[in-house]
Amino acid sequence: MTAYGKMAAAERGAEYARVQAEFEELKARGLKLNMARGKPGKAQLDMVSDIFDLMREPEDYVSGGIDVRNYGELRGLPAAQRLFADILGCRPEQVFVGGNASLQLMYDTIAKAYTHGLLHSPRPWCKEKTVKWLCPAPGYDRHFKVTESFGFDLVAIPMTGEGPDMDAVEEAVKDPAVKGIWCVPKYSNPDGIIYSDETICRIAALRPAAPDFTVMWDNAYCIHEFEGEYVEFPDILALCAEAGNPDMVFEFASTSKITLPGAGVSCFACSEANMAHMEKLMAAQVISFDKVNQQRHVLYLKDKAHTLELMKRHAAIMGPKFRCVTDTLDREIAPLEIASWKRPKGGYFVSLNAMPGTAKRTLALCKEAGVTMTGAGATFPYGKDPEDSNIRIAPSLPPVEELEAAMAVFCVCLKLAALEKLGV
Amino acid sequence: MTAYGKMAAAERGAEYARVQAEFEELKARGLKLNMARGKPGKAQLDMVSDIFDLMREPEDYVSGGIDVRNYGELRGLPAAQRLFADILGCRPEQVFVGGNASLQLMYDTIAKAYTHGLLHSPRPWCKEKTVKWLCPAPGYDRHFKVTESFGFDLVAIPMTGEGPDMDAVEEAVKDPAVKGIWCVPKYSNPDGIIYSDETICRIAALRPAAPDFTVMWDNAYCIHEFEGEYVEFPDILALCAEAGNPDMVFEFASTSKITLPGAGVSCFACSEANMAHMEKLMAAQVISFDKVNQQRHVLYLKDKAHTLELMKRHAAIMGPKFRCVTDTLDREIAPLEIASWKRPKGGYFVSLNAMPGTAKRTLALCKEAGVTMTGAGATFPYGKDPEDSNIRIAPSLPPVEELEAAMAVFCVCLKLAALEKLGV
Repeated sequence: MTAYGKMAAAERGAEYARVQAEFEELKARGLKLNMARGKPGKAQLDMVSDIFDLMREPEDYVSGGIDVRNYGELRGLPAAQRLFADILGCRPEQVFVGGNASLQLMYDTIAKAYTHGLLHSPRPWCKEKTVKWLCPAPGYDRHFKVTESFGFDLVAIPMTGEGPDMDAVEEAVKDPAVKGIWCVPKYSNPDGIIYSDETICRIAALRPAAPDFTVMWDNAYCIHEFEGEYVEFPDILALCAEAGNPDMVFEFASTSKITLPGAGVSCFACSEANMAHMEKLMAAQVISFDKVNQQRHVLYLKDKAHTLELMKRHAAIMGPKFRCVTDTLDREIAPLEIASWKRPKGGYFVSLNAMPGTAKRTLALCKEAGVTMTGAGATFPYGKDPEDSNIRIAPSLPPVEELEAAMAVFCVCLKLAALEKLGV
Repeated sequence: MTAYGKMAAAERGAEYARVQAEFEELKARGLKLNMARGKPGKAQLDMVSDIFDLMREPEDYVSGGIDVRNYGELRGLPAAQRLFADILGCRPEQVFVGGNASLQLMYDTIAKAYTHGLLHSPRPWCKEKTVKWLCPAPGYDRHFKVTESFGFDLVAIPMTGEGPDMDAVEEAVKDPAVKGIWCVPKYSNPDGIIYSDETICRIAALRPAAPDFTVMWDNAYCIHEFEGEYVEFPDILALCAEAGNPDMVFEFASTSKITLPGAGVSCFACSEANMAHMEKLMAAQVISFDKVNQQRHVLYLKDKAHTLELMKRHAAIMGPKFRCVTDTLDREIAPLEIASWKRPKGGYFVSLNAMPGTAKRTLALCKEAGVTMTGAGATFPYGKDPEDSNIRIAPSLPPVEELEAAMAVFCVCLKLAALEKLGV
């Protein structure tokens, strides 16, 4: 195959006719396929559903003398705090164990900053004239939405192969209106990048003008390898403390992609001083989260080592799906030089950069042919990709056969959009 | 026995010496008893723990075509919406099913009003100079705390035998700064009063000056009789709609005292217009609540009729505890004319009014003798009972034997405090 950009006009015209015919043929199949969200597939859910076979004996309802069925223990079961501390490499007393959604804990942290202020806030953020927020982009659309929903000004920070562009971040935090940054440090959403040690150390050592600048450290994929061995990650709480910023970071994690997306357990981890401040505010909001489900997870996951074993079984399901995506792209798209993509070893996404100005058109064509993808632009603040280029592929939900069909459609749409752009 | 107030000084002195000796004897026992919170006792938890024997078969994980284990369905499982609609007497599309805590849904409703505004808010409440909130008192301390935590001015409204003093409420809502009211319409916390039909109709027909005035209708004990037959209650959403106030009310309920306090399912119900508004705001906060637990509850509770059967089994455990409290008071305290109390037929509390100026002292004495009670004043805004009289007794947690011991202590302390007050 010749790269589309190097084809003569006539050759490109012939290719367009050929691809157009392929598209019509695929469209006629009336497919209904979904690569929109990072949802685990049914095989993964079935694999862990033996978690519901626990909690049978009266002694299962008691953990460290606490009846897990009754009210109480706002911070969560101590045994669940220990489990997450083991996974995250921090101390149990730094862990708050919540409900089924880490997004809710993140939202609530920002909401509390807005309504009451964080530990070092001169005033609640709703009393600030302007709040600015750093958004490494491409990034996670739900993160951006949380901060957008409170009216913050979202400031895009370029992503590099090592994480957020730290020169840009260090410059930006000189502005006292800049109150925080979103980070997905391991297998970033959507790029699948692991922040380098240097990047992480520079984040921990930031000297922001705002006394309440907050790093929202969403460690959503901290043990989520689907290829190769488990990769260690540093304890961001300790690094921030060592750098003199003990209260600058809130870390988040969950079992949504370890056990069950809709019925897992989430947590945040922070300094003891932050914990005391947050606990006081949260005591007005909730008596306690679901400790039965916390206990179920303690019994099922046991500890980090045992959890990593389970993650290998997830990898056996996820790996082939990601290879299907990247192999198809390598075969169908690479020679045409109309897009680039990464080959992540963990996380839930493949991030693809199409020829500038073709992402929206590609996804519109996909939709026409029955394939739902994350909306174009979703990976940028306000849903606006200035290059109209980035596309997030989420291959986890469909079985491999469906994924193959969806990728066939996607590649044809990518080609069509590129050919239209190049002119035919 | 003679009423303390009618005793001659010498007689009262002798009584004081006798009761004081009793107190010392009880204190020496080193008791550790708790009547502080409305926590179900272990027998109730054990009774419903067969709920965990459900969710065994693959088909249990699917409800109306939805895999309950995965992400999605922000409003909750349709089957769970139907269950709560059946119990509350409203329509399923008016129901939002959440996590394990209705308090959190209440807090979040107020929080959203504060950060973004409700459907008819001219502006978010954080932009208002003053927000005032009506608190029928005695009432629920956690309600008051929610509104206090956002800096609202709490306005106490006297409780009558038929619910909040509606003359006072109708007068108060003429102030546009008054944005809402807390209500526990059936078996009010702590009085155990069922609002009369007239009271409910007057609430539904309020004409508040604030366009976004909100009735927080916490139907926490809507099917929670422990004595006598189930008492029907009206659908507040329909009544408000009929009165031209469709968007004025948010109703809340949960299974915390039907299945499990820490691991139940909560909901709110409101007009479709409110639902659309709230759903838009909540979409930034959470993908979905725990639908596995919702499904577990659908399978376990089935419908209102079946749930009412379960409530009779709770009543068989709760009834004797409440009779222990009121019988002891009737026997030990009534002849002394130093306190009055209600004899509720449902809910979780007995509300007692001690001789003015003796509630704090009574509870301090209880604590000394190892009996923990809800703090004096807790049932009033800001924790300040102007009469220092109201005491909330929560008899649900201890087994009857312990309750008898705790009530013996409580009565002795009531007597001591009254005698001290009367002068000895």
